[in-house]
Amino acid sequence: MSSTFGRLFTVTTFGESHGGSVGVVVDGCPPRLRLDVEAVQHELDRRRPGQSRLTTQRQEADRVEVLSGLFEGRTIGSPIALVVENTDARSGAYDHLKDLYRPSHADWTSEAKYGFRAWAGGGRSSARETIGRVAGGAVARQLLGALAGIEVVGWVSSVHDIDAEVDAATVDETAVDAGPTRCPAPAAAARIEAAIDRARRDGDSLGGVVTCVARGVPAGLGAPIFDKLDATLGAAMLSLPAAKGIEVGSGFAGTRLRGSEHNDPFVVGDDGRPATTTNHSGGVQGGTTNGEDVVVRVAFKPTATINASQRTVTRDGDEVDLAATGRHDPCVLPRAVPLVESMMCLVLADHLLRQRAVDVLPREPGDVPPPV
Amino acid sequence: MSSTFGRLFTVTTFGESHGGSVGVVVDGCPPRLRLDVEAVQHELDRRRPGQSRLTTQRQEADRVEVLSGLFEGRTIGSPIALVVENTDARSGAYDHLKDLYRPSHADWTSEAKYGFRAWAGGGRSSARETIGRVAGGAVARQLLGALAGIEVVGWVSSVHDIDAEVDAATVDETAVDAGPTRCPAPAAAARIEAAIDRARRDGDSLGGVVTCVARGVPAGLGAPIFDKLDATLGAAMLSLPAAKGIEVGSGFAGTRLRGSEHNDPFVVGDDGRPATTTNHSGGVQGGTTNGEDVVVRVAFKPTATINASQRTVTRDGDEVDLAATGRHDPCVLPRAVPLVESMMCLVLADHLLRQRAVDVLPREPGDVPPPV
Amino acid sequence: MSSTFGRLFTVTTFGESHGGSVGVVVDGCPPRLRLDVEAVQHELDRRRPGQSRLTTQRQEADRVEVLSGLFEGRTIGSPIALVVENTDARSGAYDHLKDLYRPSHADWTSEAKYGFRAWAGGGRSSARETIGRVAGGAVARQLLGALAGIEVVGWVSSVHDIDAEVDAATVDETAVDAGPTRCPAPAAAARIEAAIDRARRDGDSLGGVVTCVARGVPAGLGAPIFDKLDATLGAAMLSLPAAKGIEVGSGFAGTRLRGSEHNDPFVVGDDGRPATTTNHSGGVQGGTTNGEDVVVRVAFKPTATINASQRTVTRDGDEVDLAATGRHDPCVLPRAVPLVESMMCLVLADHLLRQRAVDVLPREPGDVPPPV
Amino acid sequence: MSSTFGRLFTVTTFGESHGGSVGVVVDGCPPRLRLDVEAVQHELDRRRPGQSRLTTQRQEADRVEVLSGLFEGRTIGSPIALVVENTDARSGAYDHLKDLYRPSHADWTSEAKYGFRAWAGGGRSSARETIGRVAGGAVARQLLGALAGIEVVGWVSSVHDIDAEVDAATVDETAVDAGPTRCPAPAAAARIEAAIDRARRDGDSLGGVVTCVARGVPAGLGAPIFDKLDATLGAAMLSLPAAKGIEVGSGFAGTRLRGSEHNDPFVVGDDGRPATTTNHSGGVQGGTTNGEDVVVRVAFKPTATINASQRTVTRDGDEVDLAATGRHDPCVLPRAVPLVESMMCLVLADHLLRQRAVDVLPREPGDVPPPV
Repeated sequence: MSSTFGRLFTVTTFGESHGGSVGVVVDGCPPRLRLDVEAVQHELDRRRPGQSRLTTQRQEADRVEVLSGLFEGRTIGSPIALVVENTDARSGAYDHLKDLYRPSHADWTSEAKYGFRAWAGGGRSSARETIGRVAGGAVARQLLGALAGIEVVGWVSSVHDIDAEVDAATVDETAVDAGPTRCPAPAAAARIEAAIDRARRDGDSLGGVVTCVARGVPAGLGAPIFDKLDATLGAAMLSLPAAKGIEVGSGFAGTRLRGSEHNDPFVVGDDGRPATTTNHSGGVQGGTTNGEDVVVRVAFKPTATINASQRTVTRDGDEVDLAATGRHDPCVLPRAVPLVESMMCLVLADHLLRQRAVDVLPREPGDVPPPV
Repeated sequence: MSSTFGRLFTVTTFGESHGGSVGVVVDGCPPRLRLDVEAVQHELDRRRPGQSRLTTQRQEADRVEVLSGLFEGRTIGSPIALVVENTDARSGAYDHLKDLYRPSHADWTSEAKYGFRAWAGGGRSSARETIGRVAGGAVARQLLGALAGIEVVGWVSSVHDIDAEVDAATVDETAVDAGPTRCPAPAAAARIEAAIDRARRDGDSLGGVVTCVARGVPAGLGAPIFDKLDATLGAAMLSLPAAKGIEVGSGFAGTRLRGSEHNDPFVVGDDGRPATTTNHSGGVQGGTTNGEDVVVRVAFKPTATINASQRTVTRDGDEVDLAATGRHDPCVLPRAVPLVESMMCLVLADHLLRQRAVDVLPREPGDVPPPV
Repeated sequence: MSSTFGRLFTVTTFGESHGGSVGVVVDGCPPRLRLDVEAVQHELDRRRPGQSRLTTQRQEADRVEVLSGLFEGRTIGSPIALVVENTDARSGAYDHLKDLYRPSHADWTSEAKYGFRAWAGGGRSSARETIGRVAGGAVARQLLGALAGIEVVGWVSSVHDIDAEVDAATVDETAVDAGPTRCPAPAAAARIEAAIDRARRDGDSLGGVVTCVARGVPAGLGAPIFDKLDATLGAAMLSLPAAKGIEVGSGFAGTRLRGSEHNDPFVVGDDGRPATTTNHSGGVQGGTTNGEDVVVRVAFKPTATINASQRTVTRDGDEVDLAATGRHDPCVLPRAVPLVESMMCLVLADHLLRQRAVDVLPREPGDVPPPV
Repeated sequence: MSSTFGRLFTVTTFGESHGGSVGVVVDGCPPRLRLDVEAVQHELDRRRPGQSRLTTQRQEADRVEVLSGLFEGRTIGSPIALVVENTDARSGAYDHLKDLYRPSHADWTSEAKYGFRAWAGGGRSSARETIGRVAGGAVARQLLGALAGIEVVGWVSSVHDIDAEVDAATVDETAVDAGPTRCPAPAAAARIEAAIDRARRDGDSLGGVVTCVARGVPAGLGAPIFDKLDATLGAAMLSLPAAKGIEVGSGFAGTRLRGSEHNDPFVVGDDGRPATTTNHSGGVQGGTTNGEDVVVRVAFKPTATINASQRTVTRDGDEVDLAATGRHDPCVLPRAVPLVESMMCLVLADHLLRQRAVDVLPREPGDVPPPV
């Protein structure tokens, strides 16, 4: 089940770049959702390489095909299989890599785990696996909209040492996708664009941070112990390629505050329910959403594929110099935005359905009413 | 299943501080492990409040009782139920809190989720729930030792704005537990101790970071997609009370490096297998261990319980001032160390068993041999 | 997780007869259920040995203790830990069995699986494990009542070659528990009682069949593929000790009918929804309930413990004669009734909650409305 | 996850007959298995309709395509996606059924569950879903052979009132597939063939029983409580379309024996381990395999699709007469054989891998050695 994510709303991804197709089986999507397949395609287009000179120049059409799960435009409660064909597998491009281990790639660990590896294209660790996540996330996004009016927006909040200030309460996809960096703060975006260009020229690569907000999330999603919303988000985000860290709300910076500064005071909100005047909690308290915006930050390391010469060892145990020459993404951050958003959508869809199976018994006098 | 963690080696915790007992059912522990119950007790003692003036003065004996799963000192492949009685439930201590929501606690979110809450003692969000994790983690730790010689050490690496430099390759429990801060760098420890004392006097609280290393982990644990070791660690650590962030290896700081700086060069290790000269990867590449030390950092927010006056709202929807007067921990960091270690042990035990079910077929010529 | 049953409403049982306690952790029970602990005790009393001369004369009080999960009489959405102490562990009673394998017991298979076994009391295969199921099932039964008015009744429908005719539509617990056989057909009950007495005198044992009906089950529970209600019932019932077969509706006898005889014609029911004039389907069509009574039959083999001399082998590999002299149940059927009912309750509670997470989106014109 | 089966070796099926494709994602198959895709195709051919005049005359080529999971002929530890295109979807063939509920089909229950249904082709309850199971089962079968030399053979042991005597210890696929009935007892097969022909002429249908044996299963698979091998088999077999009952070993007939007749005496087997002289246990004792043949019987009701006139109701709530005229299988039993075998293979593959994660610690003197 290591390719499955979710408890009730689940995705099972499959595929490698050397194989015929990649895709996803979405199981547990409730029936009667009018699925907009073009909206799924739109998210895949946002993930697709070759969108700008900032990302890898691989050209892949990545057209999604729906194999099952719909009838007359609606979901029928059955698994939705979504498949994308592999069309740009360049035979021969990986031949020189088959007998050694690229530093900070999954080459060695794949072999340590499985005894051998599918060296053409990175095997299961190919970035093409994320197509399945994005397709599944796009279904989840539509469910979130239909069920609860939740909207999810991610953006590039830093690249290398360049930080952007963005208002999580108001930023939208139009602003994010206005430029090739997916950083909606224009001044920072310009600097980021220059930095990525420079890294490409140097044959080097850059990392950064994607921030993602979910707005309109009702209070009560998550659970007190192992299914804390934070915990599920942790599993989700750290399952993304190149992710090395995640923060919910104040994160590591919050450890530099005192409790009296960090606590989010409660006031009575517009809807009469408790609201907070600050959001250090990132919308989650005790593992459960409190009705405020859910905010996470995800750290992505600099791409492991670079064009500089590097020390490594061969499968035969010899130490050698490797000079990579393949196509590469000097910075994955712009394309990581739809990935982070997809995982956020998957997490929320699952918890939203789970809460439906929790809040089933009548209330007694004095109990808190459900969200409207 | 929201109180269950793990796929093959699982823990199911139960209990609240207002109830009779807290505990854990460990299922999936392999048979024939000679379980050292005193070693389990030792970890519970490390978690216990009242160990020093730095932590809460609640006095709880927390003696573990084994209800099942052992025969003549060995595990029998059956669930191991471990229970600790609640003895310090001060009736009345929470009466003044029952009708309002403490800021940045789980009071409001519990009610939003469940419609009401067990207001005496924090209900399921009581810190006493972690007794079950520590007991289960202590079983996992013994399994890790018996199966693979893995050792797990955690320590306080920062409190508020005080950072400690500690060598993850050599630090051990003796050094960690030498002082009340569980920070094994003496100069930093002294400053941390003073800072915590100051916070207590101020009626305030501090957060910080726990770092944890697992040494001796064989290459090949984890999986490429949703069961990346990083992902399971993310779920594990962000399920801890007050945790707001986790990093694996270089984490957020790694996003400030270029790929040429961040990549970990391979050389031939002492055992003839690939080794890295740096460990920005934190022992995990492509979601799978590479044979280096696994290193994570977990951010804990400052304790929400403080003695300062705070704005909040009541269950009736009135805005009021709350002045907490209860016993509180000005800094949970020292007691968080065994929690982080426990979750690390649980994660590794589960992945270690899972790999046993993966690596079952014979190798062909040219395949990589299994770890010795 | 092999001691856990259920997806959303889950039970995790623990304990052996040689250990201190047996019990169950019920996780996923919705909050706000007023739990009647005496009703839980009532089901445990029905399971308890020594109720009549027909069953084993072991004397166990089996008082249930609630360790967690309740507050002021209501469930709080947390795990409910229920524990029963072992008080009748007769040390020494099993000494003569420790070095051989009782035929058709779990002695040999336990050792084959685990390498050794807890020979005192049968280890994990002790019938006392079922205490946890019955306690958990009693919680589920209360949830079924509160949520949907579902009632579950089981009875002994055959013992050895004696069959009883019972009307599944009307039989109730009062009729079932009127006599020691739990067979509500008086004439058959008398013959069964005599047959069990005879078997006891002969040092032999008898098997039989328990039938169980769930009435008031709404249409729509279950799922089309692996989570067919029949499939979950199959897993549930064949997990009971000594169970060797299960039928849903017409079962094996139905294979002797032609389709034109077996199909259940639809008519318009009292509530305007489709109803069937026969119930060969046992309330389940295509894996999903159709609104009719759910009916299953479970086959229990004759108890393996008998007092006759039997051929077996020792742990050292010698062929020997074994003459059992322990306390034994000549027929488990009367005590199996609450076990079957408990598993039925657990299955339905889980599927009922799961359906709450399926039926969440609005209907369009022409869609079938939800059950009232 | 209701379309997923298994814990470690898992299959997730997808697809309906009205959609583009049906298929399966096999996750958890160990790496380094040389997968024989033609052997997978062979099992699909055995499942395919139109093989003889005894089964439905639908013509479907059912060629399997491998989308992922293989590299140079070997499994790589990644999900194996297997897809079969739908080519015989006759548009219009179901139009007259869209507004009513066929008796004993899933029409009504699908609508009760989902609010509407994919009326063209039966939606998710289409028999074409079983293509995914058979493809997945064929992978499992190869794993069973490679890991443990296990072989799995099923056959038709009864149709309507005609019973066949077959020796489970020796029957093989050649004998089973020698005739169109898949009943390897020639005299019974001839009678069955005639009975099916008669039923077809009558526009009626017949049910029956498939027996399945697994030979060479090592002792120790399964578990004492909810993961009893019998329980997993129960879930597996009762998840098959039209299955209404399952027996392990003696099943319901065993309830007519006394314990002294039913117990399986132990003797020392050829390999020095305990063996039984009878096999009423069906190879499973206490939920765990004992080293003998695993034997199950599965009851399939007569096909619900018949050509006789039947009473039913429409979606508008009118009672009407339905005269089915579609293509139909007068008896699914011959085609059910590969389905039962596939589920047996899936169950055993999963439990075999699970046992690898159980039997990991060294033995002490006096412990039972592992199977060779």
